[in-house]
Amino acid sequence: MTDETPNGPESPNVKAAAPESKGASENDLAVQRARRAKRKQKKLKRRIKDLEQELAVYDSVAASKLYGLTPELERAVAEALAEDNPRQLYRLVRPLHAADHADLIERYSGRARERLVTVLGRYFDPETLTYLDDRVREEVIPLLDEEVLKLAFQKLESDDAVEILGELDEEEQARLLEVLPESERAIVEEGLNYEDETAGRLMQRELVTVPEHWTVGQTIDFLRTNAALPNSFYDIFVIDPARRPLGKLSLSRLLRTKRPVLVEDIMQTDFHKVPVVMDQEDVAMLFRQYGLVSAPVIDAHDRLLGMITVDDVVEVMNEEAEEDILRLGGVANDDLHGGLLNTTRSRFSWLAVNLVTAILASGVIGAFETTIDKIVALAILMPIVASMGGNAGTQTLTVAVRAISMRELSSTNALKFVIKEMTVGSLNGIMFAIIAAGVCWLWFGDWEIAAVMALAMVINLFVAGLSGTLIPITLERMKVDPAVASTVFLTTVTDVVGFFTFLGLAALFLI
Amino acid sequence: MTDETPNGPESPNVKAAAPESKGASENDLAVQRARRAKRKQKKLKRRIKDLEQELAVYDSVAASKLYGLTPELERAVAEALAEDNPRQLYRLVRPLHAADHADLIERYSGRARERLVTVLGRYFDPETLTYLDDRVREEVIPLLDEEVLKLAFQKLESDDAVEILGELDEEEQARLLEVLPESERAIVEEGLNYEDETAGRLMQRELVTVPEHWTVGQTIDFLRTNAALPNSFYDIFVIDPARRPLGKLSLSRLLRTKRPVLVEDIMQTDFHKVPVVMDQEDVAMLFRQYGLVSAPVIDAHDRLLGMITVDDVVEVMNEEAEEDILRLGGVANDDLHGGLLNTTRSRFSWLAVNLVTAILASGVIGAFETTIDKIVALAILMPIVASMGGNAGTQTLTVAVRAISMRELSSTNALKFVIKEMTVGSLNGIMFAIIAAGVCWLWFGDWEIAAVMALAMVINLFVAGLSGTLIPITLERMKVDPAVASTVFLTTVTDVVGFFTFLGLAALFLI
Repeated sequence: MTDETPNGPESPNVKAAAPESKGASENDLAVQRARRAKRKQKKLKRRIKDLEQELAVYDSVAASKLYGLTPELERAVAEALAEDNPRQLYRLVRPLHAADHADLIERYSGRARERLVTVLGRYFDPETLTYLDDRVREEVIPLLDEEVLKLAFQKLESDDAVEILGELDEEEQARLLEVLPESERAIVEEGLNYEDETAGRLMQRELVTVPEHWTVGQTIDFLRTNAALPNSFYDIFVIDPARRPLGKLSLSRLLRTKRPVLVEDIMQTDFHKVPVVMDQEDVAMLFRQYGLVSAPVIDAHDRLLGMITVDDVVEVMNEEAEEDILRLGGVANDDLHGGLLNTTRSRFSWLAVNLVTAILASGVIGAFETTIDKIVALAILMPIVASMGGNAGTQTLTVAVRAISMRELSSTNALKFVIKEMTVGSLNGIMFAIIAAGVCWLWFGDWEIAAVMALAMVINLFVAGLSGTLIPITLERMKVDPAVASTVFLTTVTDVVGFFTFLGLAALFLI
Repeated sequence: MTDETPNGPESPNVKAAAPESKGASENDLAVQRARRAKRKQKKLKRRIKDLEQELAVYDSVAASKLYGLTPELERAVAEALAEDNPRQLYRLVRPLHAADHADLIERYSGRARERLVTVLGRYFDPETLTYLDDRVREEVIPLLDEEVLKLAFQKLESDDAVEILGELDEEEQARLLEVLPESERAIVEEGLNYEDETAGRLMQRELVTVPEHWTVGQTIDFLRTNAALPNSFYDIFVIDPARRPLGKLSLSRLLRTKRPVLVEDIMQTDFHKVPVVMDQEDVAMLFRQYGLVSAPVIDAHDRLLGMITVDDVVEVMNEEAEEDILRLGGVANDDLHGGLLNTTRSRFSWLAVNLVTAILASGVIGAFETTIDKIVALAILMPIVASMGGNAGTQTLTVAVRAISMRELSSTNALKFVIKEMTVGSLNGIMFAIIAAGVCWLWFGDWEIAAVMALAMVINLFVAGLSGTLIPITLERMKVDPAVASTVFLTTVTDVVGFFTFLGLAALFLI
């Protein structure tokens, strides 16, 4: 991570010409100097030109071509919306990718969003629907023309159609299902029967299968003549007559092999099959662990049902990471696009839990009312112990939660991890005990209070390390998502222990 | 997310037979009942059989085949290591995928890790190195036989070799570079010249390019005869004589097209080119946004340098998500595998910052020493206001940080977001003001303290909403990673404001 490349093509290796020594003033020396300066100048100019060119690429390609939605474009769109200029809006928005359309629609609400969707009108790219956030999608679908919606659903691949329909209410679902052609409807309805967040929901039914006795030539000819193929695929699946997958054949392998070779001779037989009931988190883990690009999905009888491709899994990985981050922060999913009241309500429940733990901690303080009444300095200093414990515990907790969700923390190394965190907590506890005691002594000039502070700090940071590991590990064993509940338990422990040890030790030794 | 599939193949739709009405006791009714019961029984049995079959697939395929590293296997490996039984260990470990080898090696340390690596010995799969965590890899490389290492590096693709070498110190780097064949060494050395965490480091040099005037047939023949192709690829790049990419051609498209067709007629000309200096986070964003599987990497002169494939990007996405989660929790990267002292040190700096803010908050309390001295209840209640503010602020902050890193929060919707969060903060502030005031009144029977608590709560939750949005947005504008610094600023604000308003209002009105 710290690797520096001083002479790399990127580092602006432009140095100022070194000043000559002052003593030299002879003529030929001056000439030489002038010549050298000119050379340097030339070199510098060339370098600047190179860098400018580089900059130009970076600016134009990176900013305006790579992401359709540049800040300039966003501003222009905002202007067109404000001026109510649909033609200008259309001109601006039309060339964008469906993913960028979705981003734009997400950024506006109410009238502005409506106008955007209307302007996209019958050129509305059905893919846009797949890129939209669930909550936003619910609001956009009613804005679309019936005909547009029909066309959109007919163009979508089965997994995308299932994903979109799965989020709608039953009435809307039924209405849109009617739009689909018979054959597709059956597929989508079946897809909807799988539990949410399983492989069955992620998979697409469109895939390429060939029997084992085919040759490479037959396979290529089949691909060339068959019109009903998925939009993009990376592997072909070799199946037996009962549709059980026997092998997986990457397109690059297929292309590199001569026509008479049998597919069964070049197929990969050691491949990963995904059961249709598998949780999407496990599917994502599988793709990540083994670097998969696509995988076959099978039913309980080992029959091929569909395939999952990496682009769908990337979405899942993203969702799962987001879930972890937000849950650790005490937020329900999808919060950015949630309505005002929904957001308030979902935040409320978490804060309510926190209020209970805060009152619990206050109860501990209340038990030492008389102690505080005698030494007010304790009231001033006590939040320091609790806060340090909370932070140290959160550090440990975050590492543990992430490791658990990445399957890096198993029974093999759990004990090692707990011991390490306890040691880290104790070591930092000792150091901060010394520092905090020093601060206390400087502030109140009372070595007894300083000593109590030091002792409480060591204890609380040790407890923080211990509970920061044990709480998530225990929750995981109890099949509770550690990202959701750990933080509450942890802060309760560190607050209660922090106040109790500090005030308790003070009551014991100072009064 | 709330979609239920009552009749799906997964939901155990097994209901107990409904009890008949008590009044009916005639003979034919009994017969009918018995028949019906039998039918139900049969149906239930079939359903159970189906479910069992399903379960069997899930158990065997999901657990033992999908992830090589099952808990049972882990236990067996631990036993073999404890018994020092290298033959048994070899038997257990040999069939695993390189990614699983890496996981196993990461879970052990010291002697056990050494023994694992030794047992894998000359069958050590070079890919294992790419799957290892950076810090673990540094420790594993010296354990490997020189010959094994040579072979490993010759087998790796250039991006993997660059990734591994980039993390080593210069001496080790030079030693391993010498091992590589001349041609490969030049490529790897060039790769090392790109800045860490840029597209240049991610890309592999091995890729397939064809001139625009070629036909599909020529391309396939070229692929069939050329031995030096990348291990797996999903797109072919069409270039002009100056190596500038003109188009991208997916293998599925190539396979579906007849031999005489020109590649320039079927290539995709509207494709994303990645500048070699682009930050890996932006590369990941690009792949995610547009669902890419591979992308060409270009230099400042638009010349094709290499390609990035989705499997490498999945790793980056994972790293970036991990970075966000850990940084929000106040932890440096790579912490799980860090050594004891390194971990202690890296945690220390964050805790030190927190100590300063905690002392600052204590300073605020100290300013109201005389107030607390008069009403001890204030000392008991004050942590509640601060803690609620901290939690509400963290909720907002988490949503903001995630939205910023996903590019969902831009200048267009920033103001909307800030206003929404302020409103949410105020609404919850009012509700918790009422609740907390009620608790105060019940506890201390003093309506004045309750009123001060209520007012302080509303103010602090409003401030929490405001600073939870403004702090990360401001940091982002200042090009500081909001995940790193936001939490410190936020807790400082909510602690200081919480203590100050509560104690300040008390000093103003109660004394």
